[in-house]
Amino acid sequence: MHEITRELNVDLGDRSYPILIGQGLLGTADLTPWVVGSQVMIVTNDTVAPLYLESARACFPGKQVDTVVLPDGEKFKDWQTLNLIFDALLEKRHSRKTTLVALGGGVVGDMAGFAAACYQRGVAFIQVPTTLLSQVDSSVGGKTGINHPLGKNMIGAFHQPEMVLIDTESLQSLPAREVSAGLAEVIKYGLIRAPDFLTWLESSIAELLDLDQQTLAEAIYRSCACKAEVVALDERESGLRAILNLGHTFGHAIETFAGYGTILHGEAVGTGMMMAADLSARQGWITEDDRDRAIRLITGARLPDRAPPGMTPEDFRSLMAVDKKNVDGSLRLVLLTALGEAVITEDAGAGHLQDTLQAYCQPAV
Amino acid sequence: MHEITRELNVDLGDRSYPILIGQGLLGTADLTPWVVGSQVMIVTNDTVAPLYLESARACFPGKQVDTVVLPDGEKFKDWQTLNLIFDALLEKRHSRKTTLVALGGGVVGDMAGFAAACYQRGVAFIQVPTTLLSQVDSSVGGKTGINHPLGKNMIGAFHQPEMVLIDTESLQSLPAREVSAGLAEVIKYGLIRAPDFLTWLESSIAELLDLDQQTLAEAIYRSCACKAEVVALDERESGLRAILNLGHTFGHAIETFAGYGTILHGEAVGTGMMMAADLSARQGWITEDDRDRAIRLITGARLPDRAPPGMTPEDFRSLMAVDKKNVDGSLRLVLLTALGEAVITEDAGAGHLQDTLQAYCQPAV
Repeated sequence: MHEITRELNVDLGDRSYPILIGQGLLGTADLTPWVVGSQVMIVTNDTVAPLYLESARACFPGKQVDTVVLPDGEKFKDWQTLNLIFDALLEKRHSRKTTLVALGGGVVGDMAGFAAACYQRGVAFIQVPTTLLSQVDSSVGGKTGINHPLGKNMIGAFHQPEMVLIDTESLQSLPAREVSAGLAEVIKYGLIRAPDFLTWLESSIAELLDLDQQTLAEAIYRSCACKAEVVALDERESGLRAILNLGHTFGHAIETFAGYGTILHGEAVGTGMMMAADLSARQGWITEDDRDRAIRLITGARLPDRAPPGMTPEDFRSLMAVDKKNVDGSLRLVLLTALGEAVITEDAGAGHLQDTLQAYCQPAV
Repeated sequence: MHEITRELNVDLGDRSYPILIGQGLLGTADLTPWVVGSQVMIVTNDTVAPLYLESARACFPGKQVDTVVLPDGEKFKDWQTLNLIFDALLEKRHSRKTTLVALGGGVVGDMAGFAAACYQRGVAFIQVPTTLLSQVDSSVGGKTGINHPLGKNMIGAFHQPEMVLIDTESLQSLPAREVSAGLAEVIKYGLIRAPDFLTWLESSIAELLDLDQQTLAEAIYRSCACKAEVVALDERESGLRAILNLGHTFGHAIETFAGYGTILHGEAVGTGMMMAADLSARQGWITEDDRDRAIRLITGARLPDRAPPGMTPEDFRSLMAVDKKNVDGSLRLVLLTALGEAVITEDAGAGHLQDTLQAYCQPAV
C-alpha cells in the first residue's frame, strides 16, 4: 500500500510548502516536481543510509543524484561535519540550482537544512524525516543549525523546505524508546493547544505504540497542523511560539544533568511536561484531576516519570538559570491554564516550584 | 567638520535601511538608534583596530560594547576565523538581541555579516566600511559569506544591515592602490547604468585620487544609489543584478591566474572592464570613441591596462570556462551597448573574443 494518507499545507506566504504523509512513500513517491534544478544531493547518516538511501534515490528519477553520508549522532552536529556536505556539493559541482534532501532524524535535518541555507547563499531543500520526533517537530518551523562548544543550536538559520515527505513505514525501524520520545512532542501539541486531540490521543496511545500506520499518520498530521498554526502566527519566534517549549526548561536541565545522549530529548521533555502540569496544578491554574490526566497520558507513552537518579532541586535551579530562554534573568516557564491551553509566565511561585522540583527528584541513593 | 554630507535610503520594504555618508562620522555619530538591544559586538581586523576601533566604540554610548579583532586578509575569510566571532559572542554571553558591527573592508563585512546571519539564527548588524571598495560595493546588496577551499564565497547568506555608516576620512589611511581599486567599481556603476555619473567622474577623477572629501562623498553616494536601484529590482540575483559583474569574468580569470592577493580585486576588474569595452566595440555595439573614453577613464584611475605578465588568451579561456557565472557551460558576459548601458549576453563572437584577449595579453617575456 503506497498512498498519501494525509496532506498538509504549511501556510507561509510565498514560502508555503506541503507535507505529504503516508505509508510506503519512500521509493514510490515522485519528488521531482519540488526539485529546483537538475541536481539533487541526499544528506543522510550511516544508520539511515543502509535502510532508506536506495529508496530515497528512487524518488528523483531523471536527476543527477549524489549522496553524502554523515556519522550518526548529536555530537557530530558541528562545523566539521557540516563541511562534509559543502565538500560533496563542490566536488560534484552542484550549482546554486541544486536541491538538498535531508534523509534522517533531527540532526540530519538541522544540518542539511543549514547547509542548504548557506550553500551559495541559499539553495532549495526537501525534508524526509525518518524519526517520529523529527516528523512532528522539524517538519515545521524552518529552524536549521549546528551546535557550538559553548551552546546547542547557537549557529543556524531559518530556512523553509520546498516540501516534507513523511513515510510512516520508516518508523518500523525505530527503537521503542525513540517512538516514546517522539510521542512526548505529539502529546505536547495536545496539551498546549488542542483538547480534542488530547482526548483522541488518550484512546489511541496503544495503537501508536504498536505503530499502527493509519493512527500514526493521523497523529503526525495533527501534530504538524498544530505546530504550523503556531509558527504561522509567529514565524521568527518573537512571542507565542515559545509555548512550543512546554516542558523544555525542565527538560533541558534534565538533559544537561544526565549528559547529552544518556536521556533522549523527548524523554526529558516528557518528564518536564509532567513537572509543568504539576506546577500548574500547584498554582491553582488547572485541577488536580487535569494534572493527573496529563501525567497518565505521558506515562502511558512509556516516558520516565522522575528526574534521573541523583538529580536534586538545586541541580534544577542552577541549570534552569542558564537556560537560554531566560533572556533577562527571571525564570520564564510555559505552564498550563487548562488541558489544551498554555501560557508563558514569570509568575510561578518560588514555593510551588520548589515543591514540584522535590516531587520529581528521586531520593538520593 | 563632522557632518552627514549625503544620506541614502536603500529601499527593500521592511528591510530598508539608511546609508549615512560624511566626513569625521567615526567617533562622533550616535548609532544607538540602530542597535536592537543593549549589547554590541564590534568585529574588525588587526590593521583597522589600531586606527578606528576606539572611535567606533564611541558611537555606542551606554551600550555593552565588546570587540573581536580578526587577522587581516582574504586568506582568513574561512570558518576557523568566523568561529572567533561566535566564540566571542558566546563567551561574552550575547543574546539574540545583540548587534554586530563590521568595522573594516570587504572581508570583515562579509564575515561579520555572515556571523550576524547565523548567530542564534540571525541577529542585527551595522556596516562601517573603511575601504573605498567596501563602501561602494558591500554597503548595498546584503551579500555575506566565507570562502571554501574549493571556491570563493561559496558559503554565505543574504542578510541586510540595520544601517551603514561611511566616514570618508577613513580613506586617508588607505594605500593608493586600494583607492584606485575602489574607483574601478565606482567607474563600473557609470558604465553600466549612469552616463551622467560617467561624465561627472571624468572631470572629478583627479580630486578623487587626491581624496577630496566632498567629491568622495558624492562618488560614494552615487555609486551606492546606483547599486541600490539594481539590487531593489533583483534582490536575490536572479537576472538584472548580473550587470554588476561588468569586467568580473575577465577579472576573476586575472585574479586566479595571478594568485589571490597579488592583484587587487578592483585592479583586475579595472582591466576586465577595459576588455569588456574593447569586446563591445569589436561587436559593433559601442563606437571606438566610446571604447577609448571608457579605457581613458579607467586608466586615469591608475588601474592596470594589461593582463599580468605571462598570461595568455588560452589562460583566459580555461579560467573563464570554470567561472561560476556560467551555469550551463556557455560563456555569459556583461558587455556594453552604450556608455551607461549594459547587457548580459552569450552572443560574443569567438573571433572578437580572441582578438580582445590577444590585445590585452602582454607578449611573453
